[in-house]
Amino acid sequence: MGKVLVFGHKSPDTDAICSAIAFADLKNKLGEDVEAVRLGDLNGETDYVLKHFQIEAPRLVKTVANEVPAVYLIDHNERAQSADDIENVDVLSVVDHHRIANFETKAPLYYRAEPVGCTATIINKLYKEAGVPVAKTIAGIMLSSIISDTLLFKSPTCTEEDVKAAKELETISGIDAQTYGLDMLKAGTNIADKSAEE
Amino acid sequence: MGKVLVFGHKSPDTDAICSAIAFADLKNKLGEDVEAVRLGDLNGETDYVLKHFQIEAPRLVKTVANEVPAVYLIDHNERAQSADDIENVDVLSVVDHHRIANFETKAPLYYRAEPVGCTATIINKLYKEAGVPVAKTIAGIMLSSIISDTLLFKSPTCTEEDVKAAKELETISGIDAQTYGLDMLKAGTNIADKSAEE
Ligand SMILES: [Mn+2]
Ligand SMILES: [Mn+2]
Ligand SMILES: [Mn+2]
Ligand SMILES: [Mn+2]
Repeated sequence: MGKVLVFGHKSPDTDAICSAIAFADLKNKLGEDVEAVRLGDLNGETDYVLKHFQIEAPRLVKTVANEVPAVYLIDHNERAQSADDIENVDVLSVVDHHRIANFETKAPLYYRAEPVGCTATIINKLYKEAGVPVAKTIAGIMLSSIISDTLLFKSPTCTEEDVKAAKELETISGIDAQTYGLDMLKAGTNIADKSAEE
Repeated sequence: MGKVLVFGHKSPDTDAICSAIAFADLKNKLGEDVEAVRLGDLNGETDYVLKHFQIEAPRLVKTVANEVPAVYLIDHNERAQSADDIENVDVLSVVDHHRIANFETKAPLYYRAEPVGCTATIINKLYKEAGVPVAKTIAGIMLSSIISDTLLFKSPTCTEEDVKAAKELETISGIDAQTYGLDMLKAGTNIADKSAEE
């Protein structure tokens, strides 16, 4: 199998970016050639997260069929939220926590959706099922995804599984979710405010 | 959560029937109230399987919304292959090994598809992930599903994962896949022949 691109939805949030990076990391550790890319600009919160963990932002792409025949989708499945030319590539795999709509494949695929608060919570399971340990910085950005999607565990979409995954990722990353999480959520807001003022 | 029905596709094959029974068994062991039902008559092969393991056939239903507000789908996702009134219930969960098409939900759900030869191969993983041991007769019908869908491991859709799952289920059930499998596939053929003659 050749190179595969993995990406989250357009107008990416922290989960769309960080879960794509984590999924690429897992697949690469399993011997595949996978690159995480993004379909839009980073928001202020995600910019804060990647700088905090000194991880390079995924490359920005508009189309994918010009690069690869097949892709992995993260944190979305609906066509309108995906790459502009998604219909010209094979979707080999989806990991998501949203409803399924406007999604169709020609062939069988790996589809893993769970009704949890964040894609990173599912990716945490995929690491375990594959027997691959989560690296420290990857744990940090996965924890950031959960904090972002669940608004520090306060969102009604937050489940026990998200809380459990976050605890495991706190331990691995050495990050305190409450302290770091407030800074992270604030960073997103501050930057948004600043742009509005400027 | 109230009672939930689980079923495979219309014109059920052995996997549609036996994986529904196995999934109901797993969910019931996890404390849910789940009944496996079927959307059509048993074929000769499946009839042979259920008699061999002395398991009662799931109840025949045509519609489901008159009984329950929510269902689990097994071995299919496309609307045309499902209950006639599938649009009037919530689909809480899908376990399948087919392409995704004409499938849409209002809410997030558990969706587990893998590009393997048989749904029972995925259900075998679900038992392990839940930490629930597979009972002897359930192992027998899950093995039957794999034998049926892969034509005794000879179909091009058969994967290493199907072979691995079948080996595990042979051990648990005490069934030799080759000997039993030939009888089972033959039973299906014989009965089909008989009906044609009658
Ligand atoms: Mn998202
Ligand atoms: Mn998300
Ligand atoms: Mn089937
Ligand atoms: Mn099947």
